[in-house]
Amino acid sequence: MALMTGEQYIESLRKLNTRVYMFGKQIENWVDDPIIRPSINCVAMTYDLAQDPEHEDLMTATSSLTGKKINRFAHLHQGTDDLIRKVKMQRLVGQKTASCFQRCVGMDAFNAVYSTTFEIDEAHGTSYHENFKKFLEFIQENDLIVDGAMTDPKGDRSKAPHAQADPDLFLHVVERREDGIVVCGAKAHQTGSVNSHWHIFMPTIAMREEDKDYALSFACPTDAEGMYLIYGRQSCDTRKYEDSPIDVGNPHFGGQEALVVLDHVFIPNEYIFLNGEYEFAGMMVERFAGYHRQSYGGCKVGVGDVIIGAAALTAEYNGVEKASAVKDKLVEMTHLNETLYCCGIACSSQGNATKAGNYQIDMLLANVCKQNVTRFPYEIVRLAEDIAGGLMVTMPSQKDFESDTPVGNNGETIGEICNKYFAGREEVSTVNRMKVLRFLENECLGAGAVGYRTESLHGAGSPQAQRIMIQRQGNIQGKKELVKAIVDIDD
Amino acid sequence: MALMTGEQYIESLRKLNTRVYMFGKQIENWVDDPIIRPSINCVAMTYDLAQDPEHEDLMTATSSLTGKKINRFAHLHQGTDDLIRKVKMQRLVGQKTASCFQRCVGMDAFNAVYSTTFEIDEAHGTSYHENFKKFLEFIQENDLIVDGAMTDPKGDRSKAPHAQADPDLFLHVVERREDGIVVCGAKAHQTGSVNSHWHIFMPTIAMREEDKDYALSFACPTDAEGMYLIYGRQSCDTRKYEDSPIDVGNPHFGGQEALVVLDHVFIPNEYIFLNGEYEFAGMMVERFAGYHRQSYGGCKVGVGDVIIGAAALTAEYNGVEKASAVKDKLVEMTHLNETLYCCGIACSSQGNATKAGNYQIDMLLANVCKQNVTRFPYEIVRLAEDIAGGLMVTMPSQKDFESDTPVGNNGETIGEICNKYFAGREEVSTVNRMKVLRFLENECLGAGAVGYRTESLHGAGSPQAQRIMIQRQGNIQGKKELVKAIVDIDD
Amino acid sequence: MALMTGEQYIESLRKLNTRVYMFGKQIENWVDDPIIRPSINCVAMTYDLAQDPEHEDLMTATSSLTGKKINRFAHLHQGTDDLIRKVKMQRLVGQKTASCFQRCVGMDAFNAVYSTTFEIDEAHGTSYHENFKKFLEFIQENDLIVDGAMTDPKGDRSKAPHAQADPDLFLHVVERREDGIVVCGAKAHQTGSVNSHWHIFMPTIAMREEDKDYALSFACPTDAEGMYLIYGRQSCDTRKYEDSPIDVGNPHFGGQEALVVLDHVFIPNEYIFLNGEYEFAGMMVERFAGYHRQSYGGCKVGVGDVIIGAAALTAEYNGVEKASAVKDKLVEMTHLNETLYCCGIACSSQGNATKAGNYQIDMLLANVCKQNVTRFPYEIVRLAEDIAGGLMVTMPSQKDFESDTPVGNNGETIGEICNKYFAGREEVSTVNRMKVLRFLENECLGAGAVGYRTESLHGAGSPQAQRIMIQRQGNIQGKKELVKAIVDIDD
Amino acid sequence: MALMTGEQYIESLRKLNTRVYMFGKQIENWVDDPIIRPSINCVAMTYDLAQDPEHEDLMTATSSLTGKKINRFAHLHQGTDDLIRKVKMQRLVGQKTASCFQRCVGMDAFNAVYSTTFEIDEAHGTSYHENFKKFLEFIQENDLIVDGAMTDPKGDRSKAPHAQADPDLFLHVVERREDGIVVCGAKAHQTGSVNSHWHIFMPTIAMREEDKDYALSFACPTDAEGMYLIYGRQSCDTRKYEDSPIDVGNPHFGGQEALVVLDHVFIPNEYIFLNGEYEFAGMMVERFAGYHRQSYGGCKVGVGDVIIGAAALTAEYNGVEKASAVKDKLVEMTHLNETLYCCGIACSSQGNATKAGNYQIDMLLANVCKQNVTRFPYEIVRLAEDIAGGLMVTMPSQKDFESDTPVGNNGETIGEICNKYFAGREEVSTVNRMKVLRFLENECLGAGAVGYRTESLHGAGSPQAQRIMIQRQGNIQGKKELVKAIVDIDD
Repeated sequence: MALMTGEQYIESLRKLNTRVYMFGKQIENWVDDPIIRPSINCVAMTYDLAQDPEHEDLMTATSSLTGKKINRFAHLHQGTDDLIRKVKMQRLVGQKTASCFQRCVGMDAFNAVYSTTFEIDEAHGTSYHENFKKFLEFIQENDLIVDGAMTDPKGDRSKAPHAQADPDLFLHVVERREDGIVVCGAKAHQTGSVNSHWHIFMPTIAMREEDKDYALSFACPTDAEGMYLIYGRQSCDTRKYEDSPIDVGNPHFGGQEALVVLDHVFIPNEYIFLNGEYEFAGMMVERFAGYHRQSYGGCKVGVGDVIIGAAALTAEYNGVEKASAVKDKLVEMTHLNETLYCCGIACSSQGNATKAGNYQIDMLLANVCKQNVTRFPYEIVRLAEDIAGGLMVTMPSQKDFESDTPVGNNGETIGEICNKYFAGREEVSTVNRMKVLRFLENECLGAGAVGYRTESLHGAGSPQAQRIMIQRQGNIQGKKELVKAIVDIDD
Repeated sequence: MALMTGEQYIESLRKLNTRVYMFGKQIENWVDDPIIRPSINCVAMTYDLAQDPEHEDLMTATSSLTGKKINRFAHLHQGTDDLIRKVKMQRLVGQKTASCFQRCVGMDAFNAVYSTTFEIDEAHGTSYHENFKKFLEFIQENDLIVDGAMTDPKGDRSKAPHAQADPDLFLHVVERREDGIVVCGAKAHQTGSVNSHWHIFMPTIAMREEDKDYALSFACPTDAEGMYLIYGRQSCDTRKYEDSPIDVGNPHFGGQEALVVLDHVFIPNEYIFLNGEYEFAGMMVERFAGYHRQSYGGCKVGVGDVIIGAAALTAEYNGVEKASAVKDKLVEMTHLNETLYCCGIACSSQGNATKAGNYQIDMLLANVCKQNVTRFPYEIVRLAEDIAGGLMVTMPSQKDFESDTPVGNNGETIGEICNKYFAGREEVSTVNRMKVLRFLENECLGAGAVGYRTESLHGAGSPQAQRIMIQRQGNIQGKKELVKAIVDIDD
Repeated sequence: MALMTGEQYIESLRKLNTRVYMFGKQIENWVDDPIIRPSINCVAMTYDLAQDPEHEDLMTATSSLTGKKINRFAHLHQGTDDLIRKVKMQRLVGQKTASCFQRCVGMDAFNAVYSTTFEIDEAHGTSYHENFKKFLEFIQENDLIVDGAMTDPKGDRSKAPHAQADPDLFLHVVERREDGIVVCGAKAHQTGSVNSHWHIFMPTIAMREEDKDYALSFACPTDAEGMYLIYGRQSCDTRKYEDSPIDVGNPHFGGQEALVVLDHVFIPNEYIFLNGEYEFAGMMVERFAGYHRQSYGGCKVGVGDVIIGAAALTAEYNGVEKASAVKDKLVEMTHLNETLYCCGIACSSQGNATKAGNYQIDMLLANVCKQNVTRFPYEIVRLAEDIAGGLMVTMPSQKDFESDTPVGNNGETIGEICNKYFAGREEVSTVNRMKVLRFLENECLGAGAVGYRTESLHGAGSPQAQRIMIQRQGNIQGKKELVKAIVDIDD
Repeated sequence: MALMTGEQYIESLRKLNTRVYMFGKQIENWVDDPIIRPSINCVAMTYDLAQDPEHEDLMTATSSLTGKKINRFAHLHQGTDDLIRKVKMQRLVGQKTASCFQRCVGMDAFNAVYSTTFEIDEAHGTSYHENFKKFLEFIQENDLIVDGAMTDPKGDRSKAPHAQADPDLFLHVVERREDGIVVCGAKAHQTGSVNSHWHIFMPTIAMREEDKDYALSFACPTDAEGMYLIYGRQSCDTRKYEDSPIDVGNPHFGGQEALVVLDHVFIPNEYIFLNGEYEFAGMMVERFAGYHRQSYGGCKVGVGDVIIGAAALTAEYNGVEKASAVKDKLVEMTHLNETLYCCGIACSSQGNATKAGNYQIDMLLANVCKQNVTRFPYEIVRLAEDIAGGLMVTMPSQKDFESDTPVGNNGETIGEICNKYFAGREEVSTVNRMKVLRFLENECLGAGAVGYRTESLHGAGSPQAQRIMIQRQGNIQGKKELVKAIVDIDD
C-alpha cells in the first residue's frame, strides 16, 4: 500500500471504534472535536511532509524488512545516518507544528522492542522477535500510527508492582490462555494514544521475579474490546471551543495526553513480545527511554525555532529589534536551542549496532541530551516572555478586538479601541501583533507549554532518571585512573 | 470612619458605576462575575487581615497625616521599620492568596507622589503637595482602594510621546480649563483597576519639553465620566465559568489586568499633582518604580511560600518526600525564595528620608531585588513542576473525576476509574492530590502564572529597566578608585 | 588603653613568641616575611581605619561591658543596627584590602561564645559566662586580635570524634587537673592564626555523650607552651619573594591559613568556656557559623567591589568600556555582588536578642547569604576574566617589562619590546595596564583567589552545611499548611 | 621519514636556534627549563600516542597529499569521520596530559589556510594554494610541529590596524622584494610557539583596503632571523623550580604562552599564503576560528575527565563518596563535560566539504560549542573545589610534609605532624591525598587553570566573538517565517 496522505490518515481514524471520554462523558465524533483535532493535525503533518519531495530524504526510508519505501517514523534505524536523519526529521516536524506530533513514541518503541526481543529469544528460545517483525511489517505496509505505552500509574512510588494495594496500578496479566493472555491496568500521560491505530505496551521499570506477571509487552489495536481512553485536560484547552482561533495561539496544531485503560483485554499470542521474562524488562525500558531522550534533541529544537522566530517578530513589531539587549537575548535563545540540537546529533552520530542489527544511540549522550532538555526550554521561554512584554498575558480577547459594541464618548466600538491602543509600529497590523503574542502565550503558559515545558521535563523520564543513567554510564572509576596516572599514584 | 471589612469593601464596589468590558461586551454585574471575583477576593483579604488582631502590627499603621489607625496600604512610610513592615505585610498577603492582591500599586503611588509633589512645589511654587495630602487623607479616612496607573500603550517604542502617529498612545491633556484639565489616552496592563475606587495616574517615562502635555499626574474616581476598562484575558480564565473549582487550581483568589481608557475625562484642579513640569516626570517614575521593585521582594515571596508548600505536599502524597533529590529541590526553592526576601528586606532596611519626610527604599538594592525577581520565580516554578510530575498537565478534568457515566466491562464509572488510577499513597484521597496538582498547574501555567511568572518579569519594569538603574547606581567610577588605591595607580 | 594603630599592632606581634613553620622549617622573623606580611597588613588595616574619623561610626563601638570605645571587631552586638554596621564595616575593609582581613572569626566567636556560655551556665550552674566576660573585657581593653578556631582535621569523615583511629584528629582533653585541663589536637585552615594574640577554640560539630572529651571551648594565647602553627601555602605564594610587586597583583595585602597544633597545652580554668557539656557543642557551632555566614555578605562584597572596579578599568584601558556587552557584564557583576550584600544586610536587619542579651542574626537568612556566596563570586570572577581578556594569564613577568637585556635587530631591550607590544589606548601607561591585570590574576587564580573563591565556598561551612540548615529552618510543614488553606484541603 | 617518537621530537627542538626570553633574560637551555619542559612533554605525548597501536586509529591518518601515514595533527580532514576522529584524539590527549597540548593550533591553521588559499587563487590567479600544499607536504613528511599564530597585540581596540599609533601593533609588510617580503609585528598569547618548529601566521580580523599591508599569511621557521619569543608567566609557574613535584600538582605536563615578535623577518615567496588580498582575511580568520572552536569540544573535555576523576578520588579518600550530595555533584560535572563533547561531535558530524576538498565543521554548531566552553569548565571547577574541600588551598608545602625539623613536645618532626593531621581514611596515604588535592589546585587556581579556565574563555576567540557568529548564522529571518506560517500571518 502506498503511503497515506494526511487526509487519508484522518479518514482512517473515523473507521476505528476508539472509545474516548472527556469532561465526564464519551465523545462520539472525537475526530472533529476542536480540542482533539489540532493534535490529529499534527500527526497528519507527518504524513503530508512524507509526500513532499523536498522532505522525502528525511521523512521516508527504505524498509529493512521489505525493501519498500516507508515513512521514517516506522523505520528500524540501519546506521548512524538513520539516527541523525531521525533527529532532523523531528526538528522539521517541530518547526511545522510547534507542537508534540506524537508519532515518535511508536518509532522509539519499534526500535527498542526489535532489539530487545532478539535478545530475549536468544536467551529463552521464545519467538517474540518473529512476532514483532511480522507486526512491524504490517504497520509499515499500512502506514499506521502506533503509540508506545510505558508509564503505569504507579500508585505508591515506594512500593514494587506486586506490592501495591491495587494490582491494577501496574499493567499485568490476569489470565493466561492457550491462545493468548488477558491483561488489566492502565498507562498514564499517553501522548497521542487517541490518534493511534495501534498501541505497543511495555513495562515501566526494571523488575524482579515477584513482578513476573507485570513483565509484559504486546501490541493491541486502539479500539480493542475492553480498551478505552480518558482525555487529559491541558492549560487553556477550552479556548478551542470559543471560536476565537487567534486566542488559541496555535490555531491548527497541538498535543494530547490520555489515560489508557485496559480492562480485561485479550491479547493473542502473535502480538506478545514479552511475557514474564522479567530480567529483560529493564533492557526494554532503558532502550526505549534512550531513543526517546534522543528524540527530544530534535522535536523540542524545532519548536524552539518557532519560539525564537516569534520573539524576534514581536521585537520587530515593537520597533526594538535592533536594541542590543534584544539581540543578545535572541542569541542566547539560539545558543541554548542549538546546544540541544548538538546533543541530539551527537548521541546519534555515536550510535552503535544492537545484536539484532538495528542501531541504537549512545546511551550516555542521549541521557545528557534529555537532561539539557529539562532545563533549556524553560530559559528559552523566559527569554521569549522577556522580549514579548507583558501584553502577552494582559491583552483583551479576540472577541474584544472584533466587537462592534459601542463604548466611549465618540461612539467608537470596543474593537476600534483595542485596535487603537494595541497598535505597535505604524506599518504593523494590530491583529498580526496579537497573533504572535497569543502564539507565545500558548507556548509559554497555554496548551503549547504542556508540550514545550512540562513534557520537556518529564517526557521520556524525569530529570532524576537521567541523572541515574549518567552516573551509571559516566565511568567514574576510569576517570580516577586517569588522574592517578597523571599524579603518579600507584595503588 | 472605621476600617472596612472585606465584605464591606465588596459591597462598596457595587455602588460604583464602573464600566467593565470583557469578551466583546459590557459586564453588568462584574462584582459577581466568576472570572473577576477571585481578584476582588484578593483585595478583600487586605481588609480582612487588617481586622485580625494577629496581623494588626503588619496590616495597619498610624497615619502621619491624621494620627488615626489606617490600613498600611494607605500609609506614608515613616521610617525603615515601616518599609520592612510593608514587605512583611506583602509576604503575608501573598501567603494567604497565592496571587497578586493588587493593592500595592496604590500604596507605592502614594509614597512616590507625596515626595515628588513636595519637590515640584519647592521648585515651581505649585500646590500639588497640598492637593495630594488632602486626597490621601480622604483615602485613608474612607479606607479606599486606589490603583496606581503608569504604563502607557506606547505604540512605536522608538518614538517619543509627542512623535507618535496617534497622540493618544500616551496619556495627555487635550484641553486646559480654569477649573481643571481634560485628558485623553489609556494605561495598559493595569493591575486591579476594576477593583479600585480611585486611580492615580502618573507618567511612564522621563520627559523633555516637547512632551510637556504628557507630563501629567492626577487622581480620578474609577467610575468618572469618560473612563472605562477593557478586561485582559489570562491563561485558563474561562475555567472559572465551568463550575469546576478544583480545575481552577486556586478556587478563591486571582489577579486581574485591564486596559484603562480615559476618553475626554475632566480632572478638577484639586486632584492634579503634576501638569507640565516635565523635568519631574522622571523622578516620579523612578520613585514609583523603586517602591514597586521593593514590593516584589514581599508579595512574590509569599506566593513562592505556597508553591514550595504545594511541591512538598505532592511529594508527600506520592510517598517520595524523603528522597534526597526531592529534599534538595525543596531546599533550592527555599533558598531562591528567601534570597528574594533578603533583597526586599535589605532595600527597606537601607531606606532614607525624602525631602518631604516619608521614607524611600535604597534605589540600587530595590533594582537588584526586582532583577532577581525576573529570574528566580521561573526556576522555582521549574523545580515545582519537576517535583509535581507530569500528571499536573495530563490529569483528566474534575468533571471526569465526578462523572457517573459508565465505562469499562464491569460497570465502573469514569469517576471511579479516575479515582482508581490516580491514587497515590494509600491514605491520601485522590481528590486532595488533584487539588494540589491543579494548584501547581495554576501557578506554573494557568492564571496564577500570569502573576507569578510574567508579572515577576515585567511588572514594575522589564529586566532591562532595572539593569539601566543598576548601571547608573553602581558607582563604577568609585570602584575604579578602589582598585587604583590597592595597586598603586596614581593618575 | 587606647585603640592601637596598625603600626602598634604590628610591633605587638614581634613581642610574642609565636612559633611559625613554613617550607619545612621554623620562620624566625615571621612578621617581616614577604609571604606572611601582607596578611598582617590586612589586620593592621582594621586598626588604622578605626583611627580614621571618617570611619569611626562603622569601625568602633561602645563596649557593652565597660562603656568604653572599642574596635567594633571586639564588640558584642547590641541590636540589629550593630549587626548591620558589622556588615558595612566588613565591606569597607574588604574594599581597602581586597583580601580576607581575618579579624571577623574572633568577633564571631565572641558573640557565639557569649550567648552560648550564658545558656550553659543556666543549665549546669557553671561559670563559663563570667569567665568569658572577663576574658573579653581584657581583649577589648587591650585591643587584641583573637582567632576563632573551629575546624578539626576530622580524619575519616564517616566516623565520630571518639571513633577515629587517632584521637588527636579532633581536639580533646587528655588530662583534667584541679587548676585546668591539658588538651591535644589541631585546627585546620585557620585564617589569621599567626597574626592573632589569642585564640578561642570551639567544637566543630554537634556531639553526643561518647564525645564528651571533645566538647571543649577555651581561650589560649597564641604563643602558649605546646602550641605552634604550620603555614599553608597559597597559589602564587612565592611570587612575594621575587621582588616583583606588580606580579604579586595585590602588593600590600593578602590572607593566610595555617594548621594550629596544640600539643599538651595547659588551659587554666578561668579560660574555659565549655568542658564536657556536649549537648551545647551544637549550639556553639551553629551560632558561630551563623555569624560567620553573615560576615561573608560584607567582606566578600567589598572584595567584589574592587574586582568590578578592576574589570571596568581594564575595559577603559583597552578602549572598550562603552561596548554594550562590556557594560552589561559590569551590570551583572554589580547585580550579583549587591545581591550578596542584600543577604548580609537582611539577616542582620532581622536579627534578634539572645538570652544573654547580645544579638544574633536571622539563622535562615544567614545561611541563604552564605549559600549565595558559594556561587556568585565564581561567576563574578568569570565575568572579570571575560572582560580582562587572556593577557591576564599570558603576560610576561615584571622582570621582562623592566629588563634592559637587548633583544631584536635594532637594539631594543626586552623591556622596551614588552612596553611596545602591551600598550593599550595611547594615553594609558603599559605599567598601569599590567598592574590591574595582575591584580585580577591574583583574585581569579592567585593568592587572592584562595580568599575570594575557595574561602567563599568552604569558609564558615561548605555549601552542603548551609543546605542542611536551610532545610531545617525552611518550615516546610508551615508552607504545606498555606497551600492546604488555599485549595480547601482539610485533613 | 617515519613518525617521530616523543623523545626524537624533544631532541629535534635542541637543534633549533629558537630565541626564548623569560624573567628578563634569554634562556639558553630552554628545552630543559623546569617551567618550559612540561609543555614540551605535552607535545611529545602527541608523538608517543601516535606510536601506540591502541591509539593508531585516532592518532594517525593517511595523507591526502602523499598517501602516507601521518600524524593526524598534520592531516587535512577528508570527511566528517576525520572531523569526529579529530575531536576524539583531542579528548584522548587531554586525558593523558590534563593540559593544553598545543598541537591543535597548527592543525586548525592547516585546514583553514588550505581551503582559503584555494579560493584566493580562484579569485586572483595567485598560487598560494600550491605554496601551501608544498609546505604542508614538507611538514607531514618530517612530522613537525607548526604553531598557528593569529592574535595581534591590537593596541587601541577602537582603531583599525592602519590607524594605530604604532603600526607594529598589527603584523604587517614593511618591504616588498622580488623574492619575498619583510614583515614586522608580533602575535600575543601564542600557545606552544616555543615548542614549534615552524609558525603559520594569519590575520586576526576581517580587513578593508586601507589595511592591505596587514592582510598577510605565511609560514616561517621558529628560529628565523629576527624572530624571538618572550615567555608569558602563569599562575604558580615558579613552583616548578622548587623541586617539589607534588606541589606543582601536574608534575609532568603543562601549557605555555608567549609573545612572538617578528622584527624585520624576511619571508621568501614560496612560504606566502596571503599578501594583500584583504577581502580574504575575514574568511581565513573565520575558518581557523571555526576549527579551533570545535577543538575545545575535545581537548577541554579530556581535561574535564581528569578533573572529575580527581574530585571523585578526593571524595573516596575522605570517605564521603557515597554521600548523595557528592554523587550528585559528580553527575553534574559529568553532564556538563559530556554536553561540551556533544557540541564537539555535533559540529563535526554536520561538517561539509570546502571548495578545496577538505572538510570544515558546521559553523553555527562550532560557535555554540565554544560558547559553552566559556561557561561549563568554570562550573566544573567550582564543583571540583566544592568536593575537594578547603584543604586544597590551605595545605602546607611538600617541604613541610617531608621535613625532619623537630617540632612539638614529643620530638615529632614537621613532616610527621603534617602526615598525622592530614590523614583521611585509614587506608589512604596522606601523600596520595596531597597529590590529588594539589592536582586540583593546579587545575582550579594554578598553571593548569590558565589552560582549563582562562583559555576556555578566550582561546579561539572571546565569548562575544561567538555570539556575533551565532547571531549571523542563526537565521532569525527563517525562524520568523516559521511562526508566520503557523499563526497565519501573510505579509
